Amino acid sequence: MRLSRSFLPTLKENPAEAQIVSHRLMLRAGLIRQTASGIYAWLPAGLKVLRNISQIVREEQDRVGAQEVLMPTLQSADLWKRSGRYDAYGPEMLRIQDRHKRELLYGPTNEEMITDLFGQTVKSYKDLPQVLYHIQWKFRDEMRPRFGVMRGREFLMKDAYSFDLDYESAVATYRRMLLAYLRTFQRLGVRAVPMRADTGPIGGELSHEFLILAPTGESGVFYDAALEEQDWLDEPVDTNSPIALEAFFNRVTTPYAATDEMHDEAGWQAVPAERQREGRGVEVGHIFYFGDKYTRSMDVSVSGPDGNQLYPEMGSYGIGVSRLAGAIIEACHDDNGIIWPDAVAPFRAVILNLKNGDELCDAICERIYSTNEEAFLYDDRAERAGVKFADADLMGHPWQIVVGPRGAKEGKVELKRRATGERHEVSVDDALALVLAG
Amino acid sequence: MRLSRSFLPTLKENPAEAQIVSHRLMLRAGLIRQTASGIYAWLPAGLKVLRNISQIVREEQDRVGAQEVLMPTLQSADLWKRSGRYDAYGPEMLRIQDRHKRELLYGPTNEEMITDLFGQTVKSYKDLPQVLYHIQWKFRDEMRPRFGVMRGREFLMKDAYSFDLDYESAVATYRRMLLAYLRTFQRLGVRAVPMRADTGPIGGELSHEFLILAPTGESGVFYDAALEEQDWLDEPVDTNSPIALEAFFNRVTTPYAATDEMHDEAGWQAVPAERQREGRGVEVGHIFYFGDKYTRSMDVSVSGPDGNQLYPEMGSYGIGVSRLAGAIIEACHDDNGIIWPDAVAPFRAVILNLKNGDELCDAICERIYSTNEEAFLYDDRAERAGVKFADADLMGHPWQIVVGPRGAKEGKVELKRRATGERHEVSVDDALALVLAG
Repeated sequence: MRLSRSFLPTLKENPAEAQIVSHRLMLRAGLIRQTASGIYAWLPAGLKVLRNISQIVREEQDRVGAQEVLMPTLQSADLWKRSGRYDAYGPEMLRIQDRHKRELLYGPTNEEMITDLFGQTVKSYKDLPQVLYHIQWKFRDEMRPRFGVMRGREFLMKDAYSFDLDYESAVATYRRMLLAYLRTFQRLGVRAVPMRADTGPIGGELSHEFLILAPTGESGVFYDAALEEQDWLDEPVDTNSPIALEAFFNRVTTPYAATDEMHDEAGWQAVPAERQREGRGVEVGHIFYFGDKYTRSMDVSVSGPDGNQLYPEMGSYGIGVSRLAGAIIEACHDDNGIIWPDAVAPFRAVILNLKNGDELCDAICERIYSTNEEAFLYDDRAERAGVKFADADLMGHPWQIVVGPRGAKEGKVELKRRATGERHEVSVDDALALVLAG
Repeated sequence: MRLSRSFLPTLKENPAEAQIVSHRLMLRAGLIRQTASGIYAWLPAGLKVLRNISQIVREEQDRVGAQEVLMPTLQSADLWKRSGRYDAYGPEMLRIQDRHKRELLYGPTNEEMITDLFGQTVKSYKDLPQVLYHIQWKFRDEMRPRFGVMRGREFLMKDAYSFDLDYESAVATYRRMLLAYLRTFQRLGVRAVPMRADTGPIGGELSHEFLILAPTGESGVFYDAALEEQDWLDEPVDTNSPIALEAFFNRVTTPYAATDEMHDEAGWQAVPAERQREGRGVEVGHIFYFGDKYTRSMDVSVSGPDGNQLYPEMGSYGIGVSRLAGAIIEACHDDNGIIWPDAVAPFRAVILNLKNGDELCDAICERIYSTNEEAFLYDDRAERAGVKFADADLMGHPWQIVVGPRGAKEGKVELKRRATGERHEVSVDDALALVLAG
């Protein structure tokens, strides 16, 4: 995309309404604009980020056999009356009346709807397990929306729901999803540490939150550094084997990790001091087993092997997709701006033309740009070099390809890696090879 | 995807609630399920169709320089009060109060919001023209939702908005978008005929609806067959040249085409009888120039070349993405079911294993399936051949690869083209080459 033609408005000043760094940088880098309290429009570069995150989430859900559907944003209140949650859910639920005075609501989550859809479709234990997910906008009417997309009201979430015949099978599904989550966050370029969460009346140990370290996080977190060193993409888990899944689960859950809510000082002191990590954490995912809570309350059963009706065991698995755009910035930035992980960046590189109108500089820039107009943002504006450098750092492209008149004469460009600040003078072809390789 | 493991529930019987063929087939082929009046969940195969349509729409919007954003579903009523439409818009607008008693609404369209976003960002005539679009869920509270996704309440729409400095530039933008629309519909495998629509108080000739012939269409249509014979993908229009665009516009708008609203018997009689096409039409797109209606009412201006403030000229350009899923079926089906155009089909082919458990049949099916698990639906169910054939026709995959024990011994499969019914016995490799080529 050519920056001179693009809808990518950067701001020089810090917007007064933004209290935290990710919110400030998302506004300044032209990713989002607020349209109402806690509600945002995603501008072209922001939408690319949102889509990159969604696609990685999708690929990892598909990889563990989850199937994507798309449920609507509005739901009938009747569904929630069947589960008994309609009255229990507080003022965060946005309740709506249509023209016929029928009660609707903007879905804050989809347990009821998916249980109903499942029940209309699946009648026999032979069709289990099933894992269904969607990536859809939700609404929670927060009392005080703040921190930009980190605590907005309309937000994009991936929520998956699993249906298993019995507890053992549900446990295996839960563990597969744990692996999918670890892989997802690692691919997104951040380390989200799984921490045991309160299971309330359900009991057991099958509830984990995933937190990213960030000074503005809502929880205190304590964990063993072992958890951020593991390469989950390289973890050879046979996801068809319950025994392999159990061993994997134990490897993940043995090192100490807890939010302040679940913190246990004795366990913490057992972690060698050099491996203790402590700070604030932002929740970006949550996986949760809740048994037959919804299938029973909504009376959704399948016929079992011996003909009797059984209530499937369920779990739910959320990832805050729009929140992640902010959380990744909280984890990946410096004083100059965003430092996008490669997999999430709206553009792989920005091409900085230091002398617009110079025949050679223009030709080199055009040549680079034409190789992949999707991957490159071409800063062809008639601005000073200083402005271009500052905007490039602010927007956080993984690579900057700097084209100036001196190097151009020798067919050279300067390649800067945003994350490290390293710069190298290289040929145009080498720059292209490096940038497009990742 | 393996059909035995997939959430793809076909129905043998015609659902009583469905009055038109596309609605019946979408329910029977397991594409959608109703979750509330006029509100649908998209099951995995339906979501693939929706995504295929969206992607083609997106590519053609990008091709004419439109930039994709994503505006939220909920809007502040204040925006609509600025343009004066809040009170004028009737009961189809879903009005909402949040917990602080602030007035929100579920966006039925986005002129106000985009004009506001544009005004926050673009300050100078130098940054024009701009075309912005998004593909987002909308809500219109229809009095009597019916015909499935053809007249639902929550629906997916692509809406684009253009901002130009003057009328001449706005006309060029309009004509570029006309070309994009003709290309889009042709790529989707249907012919949508552009017909001049009423421009109301704006006047002029810059409003066109795009209609697909379907017996259940809401309008009568009359047009010259020349309009469905043209290959718009092969039309070499220089979209940077106003003259080329004008010539193109004249070619498109010269042959007779009108809905009953705009029908003119004298013009119609001038069309040679053998080229007269008459029937019902479903509207799937609408492009509309409306000048400075919103920029003026919302006081959004840019500085002009001589320093004075100017109100940009706008147009809007809609495509009913979810409606198209139904409209394409209205245009593409027979008594046995859907006949998906290749570009829209959820799967390129179904693999029909006529003898599950037969070592050779299973091996051939698995071999074909493993070449591209995304492109193929593998019917591995323990069902009779007749059931598999009927479901394959119902679901409308462009190709059926039939694997039976007799052919299997010779390494042969039967390849059936859904649209024509043609069948050929071919080698497995030839089948793969044919199916994956398109």
